[in-house]
Amino acid sequence: MSQPSRSIDRFYSVIPAGGVGSRLWPLSRADAPKFLHDLTGSGQTLLKDTWDRLVPLSGPERIMVVTGRAHRAAVEVQLPELTDNNVVLESEPKDSSAAIGLAAAILAKREPDVIIGSFAADHVITDTRRFRAAVVEAAAAADAGYIATIGITPTEPAVGFGYIRCGGPITIPRAPSAVLVETFVEKPDLETAQHYVADGDYLWNGGMFIARADVLLAQLGESDPALLAGLLELADAWDTPQRGAVVDKVWPGLAKIAIDYTVAEPAALAGRLVVIPGDFDWDDVGDFASIGKLHSRGRKSDLAILGENARVLSDSSSGVVIAQSGRLISLIGVTDIVVVDTPDALLVTTTANAQRVKAVVDALKLSGRYDVL
Amino acid sequence: MSQPSRSIDRFYSVIPAGGVGSRLWPLSRADAPKFLHDLTGSGQTLLKDTWDRLVPLSGPERIMVVTGRAHRAAVEVQLPELTDNNVVLESEPKDSSAAIGLAAAILAKREPDVIIGSFAADHVITDTRRFRAAVVEAAAAADAGYIATIGITPTEPAVGFGYIRCGGPITIPRAPSAVLVETFVEKPDLETAQHYVADGDYLWNGGMFIARADVLLAQLGESDPALLAGLLELADAWDTPQRGAVVDKVWPGLAKIAIDYTVAEPAALAGRLVVIPGDFDWDDVGDFASIGKLHSRGRKSDLAILGENARVLSDSSSGVVIAQSGRLISLIGVTDIVVVDTPDALLVTTTANAQRVKAVVDALKLSGRYDVL
Repeated sequence: MSQPSRSIDRFYSVIPAGGVGSRLWPLSRADAPKFLHDLTGSGQTLLKDTWDRLVPLSGPERIMVVTGRAHRAAVEVQLPELTDNNVVLESEPKDSSAAIGLAAAILAKREPDVIIGSFAADHVITDTRRFRAAVVEAAAAADAGYIATIGITPTEPAVGFGYIRCGGPITIPRAPSAVLVETFVEKPDLETAQHYVADGDYLWNGGMFIARADVLLAQLGESDPALLAGLLELADAWDTPQRGAVVDKVWPGLAKIAIDYTVAEPAALAGRLVVIPGDFDWDDVGDFASIGKLHSRGRKSDLAILGENARVLSDSSSGVVIAQSGRLISLIGVTDIVVVDTPDALLVTTTANAQRVKAVVDALKLSGRYDVL
Repeated sequence: MSQPSRSIDRFYSVIPAGGVGSRLWPLSRADAPKFLHDLTGSGQTLLKDTWDRLVPLSGPERIMVVTGRAHRAAVEVQLPELTDNNVVLESEPKDSSAAIGLAAAILAKREPDVIIGSFAADHVITDTRRFRAAVVEAAAAADAGYIATIGITPTEPAVGFGYIRCGGPITIPRAPSAVLVETFVEKPDLETAQHYVADGDYLWNGGMFIARADVLLAQLGESDPALLAGLLELADAWDTPQRGAVVDKVWPGLAKIAIDYTVAEPAALAGRLVVIPGDFDWDDVGDFASIGKLHSRGRKSDLAILGENARVLSDSSSGVVIAQSGRLISLIGVTDIVVVDTPDALLVTTTANAQRVKAVVDALKLSGRYDVL
């Protein structure tokens, strides 16, 4: 293969492709998670969109995907350029510290001064030019020894996202927009979100982390030395015949914890985390309401219809219909409606209740209804 | 067969089993009309419920069913006691004047002084004792030469039913409740309906007609002599080998008109129509809202769920779910919702919009979508 151009030296993209997307049930399932769906009408899956967005940054041969064993085949179909040595399979889900930490450890062993950027497989960004510019700055901050994240300039007081509170300015070569992160805050209520947006010092937490792999691992090790030790043991064996045996021994014991708690928050406290404000569109497509919003492009009066050959008769002017069963769907006099029609399960709710869909998934788990999960 | 007891001399029940029930789409279809469904949770179809209600009045051997050729087999499965000479098949639908008029003509030819009572195949009445008492009075009025109907005492200002305005009292032997009908009024708006109920002189039009067959035919002949002539020609040939040929010749040319216009309204104008007020529960199950009401038995806070082995997860406290596809149905935060889930079509609306379902059927007809009609 010829070496494609890439914009950042020593850069490696990491795509953790893990979460099912419970709030998108019954579209997202254990065997068809969110990242394997086309939720934007782009004609391809969110995973492939993510890949395409990262290729110009790192080249296709420097994108690593961390995913569950069950999804290997589907991921490889989506990403034909993905090479075997760039696939990390989790034998069981261990949350983002283990997923991103293992990728960092493997890549650091292969290439000690590598800079990695971790980007969720199921987020939506269409302004790739500005996205790329932000990553270039973040990589410069990483090169200077910081852990960098990209925060998105809020366009509305969203209650479905976490926020980053910016601290003081900091001077980093080739990263003129960087500011220190003061703290991370969880999804706020509407009133708090309105304060955040009015304040101007808050950005949406896009969950992107860019750092030298060794810096990220050192930070993780300060928070959880046992987890770091496990990851390093896995990385030592990874490119050897011992990989399988060491995975079987080490993986089950790894702590199940989000990287926010092991890396991002401690680094912010220690003054080692900077944020590059990203002035581009971004959405984590967290629920059906956000799918509706993505499709209506801001207009409030559109009914979004997803699904190949969807057959929908509707007088409804707002909401989302996802048609996967081939049936004729008829809506009369319902507004802000969410209808998700799959061959074995049907969901009817409203955009205002979209966040509550996870409760159905929880109820189905409790009652052992794994056939529809 | 032994002769079962019956309460009224010379009485013959007629069940016109015709209408599809467009407002109940996609449950009701051309090949599965409303009367072939169990909409009450009784465990049997509306047609069978109707049959069971009439057997004590006329005996099973004196119940005639008028239905479309396409429904013959389904009707015979539902009504194993129905005899061949009591089945009248319409080669194409011609509305109620032709359906009831032909039954009257056939029966009058077989038995000149017969009294017939016509009762829709798809209405719901559970208080059979009071229903029977009203029919007995109506038959007495018929015996005295009147055309009789049964009007239901309104329990609420319904806008989905037609009304009967009662006129002056009249003395008829064995029909002490009978009053003259002043006029029929179409489905009113809510304000008008409230006036009707407050006024006390209005009854719901239950669409039941009881009369001597010859009296009914004479009234019909005054309104439409050509229609009467056609019906008499059919009746003359009915019990002969010429039936098929005469049907082929005469049926296509019969006027397509409701019996309200050919018999009921002209008889009211002429002072020949009496009404027996019926103090029993009655519903024409005209739309999904009324199905919900029937199931919740007046309580406003119940979600009605119909369908064998329905699997519904819901936090919704009102509305109707009809589950026919076997799929898991999940409702979150939707009230007064109507979800009708069939193998090839899905309807989502609200009880307030239930009357508008017919518009979907009309749209489907216009676009030639007969596969789902």
